Amino acid sequence: MAVNTFKASAHLQEGVKVKATSRHFELTIDEPKSLGGTDTGMNPVEALLASLGACQSIVARVYAPKFDIKLDDFQVDVEGDIDLDGFFDRAPVRAGYSDIRYTFRIKTDAPRERVEEFVRFLESKCPVGDTLENGARLQLSNIIIEN
Amino acid sequence: MAVNTFKASAHLQEGVKVKATSRHFELTIDEPKSLGGTDTGMNPVEALLASLGACQSIVARVYAPKFDIKLDDFQVDVEGDIDLDGFFDRAPVRAGYSDIRYTFRIKTDAPRERVEEFVRFLESKCPVGDTLENGARLQLSNIIIEN
Repeated sequence: MAVNTFKASAHLQEGVKVKATSRHFELTIDEPKSLGGTDTGMNPVEALLASLGACQSIVARVYAPKFDIKLDDFQVDVEGDIDLDGFFDRAPVRAGYSDIRYTFRIKTDAPRERVEEFVRFLESKCPVGDTLENGARLQLSNIIIEN
Repeated sequence: MAVNTFKASAHLQEGVKVKATSRHFELTIDEPKSLGGTDTGMNPVEALLASLGACQSIVARVYAPKFDIKLDDFQVDVEGDIDLDGFFDRAPVRAGYSDIRYTFRIKTDAPRERVEEFVRFLESKCPVGDTLENGARLQLSNIIIEN
């Protein structure tokens, strides 16, 4: 077992703006004006899709040599559907993504059959993709209340 | 039905560095040196946890008035476990998070019982939390190969 524990924090600012941090990195999360924010950053569900595309890209870089594929360029376009009636408590539907779709854009001279095999492999080894497809156990550790 | 489609893209740069974008926002994703990167940004699984904490924070802001809770400060610390033998193809284990835990740090004068009720509600309405707990259908739309 090589279990690694990763960490991040989020600190609510004015309105729905959030300062999210992990190690020495910081990310501003906000909502567009249409969803009640001030539009100073991606919103959380966009950041989630960005993390999926980034993860697939990194797995592609790491495993391309195993399939003898030279990646001259690699890009992923991701999109996903959320019924916002869940978040806004207007209907008894789930709050999150029902469907997430992605398109790989790959510049390579490798034959399509080998690229397809490579893509199937990278999908199976992508930590974010596996988490989104199969879920994780979420657990509230503690609620610390300061007066 | 109020289905909204959110979008993001990821573009692989040198090594495992990735430029992730959504609308007019950009985020650099990389890996620490210990995982083969140049450490210029959070890695994808850290960004995933950051998006969860940010989402919980925003849901807290939106729904605090419903529970008559004044949030003088709100912070979430998130952590999650991944067995990296999955990603590195060293053992037949899943590639993603098995467990994700979080602690809420709330500054408020509201009584604990009401805060706990509020937290249960916000957990149920969090789009990223719901996606991570219950999963989504992931689908490869297309592989576009350019020579």
